Amino acid sequence: MTASVLDMSMSLDGFVAGPNARPDNGLGDGGERLHEWLFAGAGEEGGARAAIRRLPGVNGQVARELMATGAVVAGRGTFEPAGGWGGDHHGGVPIFILARDPAGLGEWPLVTYVDDVAAAMAAAKQAAAGRDVLVHGAGTAQLALAAGVLDEIELHLVPVLLGAGRRLFEDLPPRQVELELTRVLAGEGGITHLHYRVQS
Amino acid sequence: MTASVLDMSMSLDGFVAGPNARPDNGLGDGGERLHEWLFAGAGEEGGARAAIRRLPGVNGQVARELMATGAVVAGRGTFEPAGGWGGDHHGGVPIFILARDPAGLGEWPLVTYVDDVAAAMAAAKQAAAGRDVLVHGAGTAQLALAAGVLDEIELHLVPVLLGAGRRLFEDLPPRQVELELTRVLAGEGGITHLHYRVQS
Repeated sequence: MTASVLDMSMSLDGFVAGPNARPDNGLGDGGERLHEWLFAGAGEEGGARAAIRRLPGVNGQVARELMATGAVVAGRGTFEPAGGWGGDHHGGVPIFILARDPAGLGEWPLVTYVDDVAAAMAAAKQAAAGRDVLVHGAGTAQLALAAGVLDEIELHLVPVLLGAGRRLFEDLPPRQVELELTRVLAGEGGITHLHYRVQS
Repeated sequence: MTASVLDMSMSLDGFVAGPNARPDNGLGDGGERLHEWLFAGAGEEGGARAAIRRLPGVNGQVARELMATGAVVAGRGTFEPAGGWGGDHHGGVPIFILARDPAGLGEWPLVTYVDDVAAAMAAAKQAAAGRDVLVHGAGTAQLALAAGVLDEIELHLVPVLLGAGRRLFEDLPPRQVELELTRVLAGEGGITHLHYRVQS
């Protein structure tokens, strides 16, 4: 069964970006701290994706699972600061970007712009060819949770308090959503990888 | 070495109480979900403290560590809704309550009211006789972090999204505080017990 899996690195105080996040400062001030574990070797040969493929240990295992997903759903706020990942997030899988007005976002063969989160998720699941769908971004997470189209959550809990920035879980409908913890992995550098299934 | 250890049960979205928390609704609406793991057997003989002593497994181990601390520091917002724990939080250890104006909070032999978080922590460490100091409450946590007098954090991460309520980490100084993860325990019921040392 194809699942939609939100994948985010989050500080212990709940932030996924530092303050002053903008298109030209996508992770916000100090936000790169949250992704250090993933891009540990990114300065070396072959760039970021090669570095992820080489990442050792538990962090490497988790990173490679993400790179084995069959489609990507993300918001404009994730896509744009990342330069659209050069049109290829990983392995040439289809990318669905939530955007009400995609003018100026560029045209890329793998990228489809969609204006509704449920439609984006349905299209991505179809396109993922039996693999999971990687979901990225706080805004997309909030919309997907509210619409009931998020199946699982994989959080990389980073041992830092940012004190300010963009929260992952904000402006959710004020109702209790039960989760089932399906895996806890203690990664290198004090990163805790938590995997949950959304129950209700 | 005596350490001050913040101990809180927190939802995955960062709340330590549900919405509408008040002195007569201390955990807020639905907030009791966060403490289910600790009070699993509290309806049975001997009340809450006896139930905690009987709690099996990993959750029981963690709960008994908390009950082995040598002093308690908490805020009025924690103390008052709990009825001052009947004047004895656990094992007759000294209790230090942060309150600018303690009028109306009652007099209890084990309870001292203090108006400054650093003074409260210093007095509690002195009184703890070589054991750790248990720190409780979001407001106290925020003050202690800002004053640099919080040594460790033990979080019980509960597999639920509350969507609204009182956040543990809010109104912190907007600066990055590094933590050292010293233990991860997978408890019963999907509770993840995370222990951190505050670095800076």
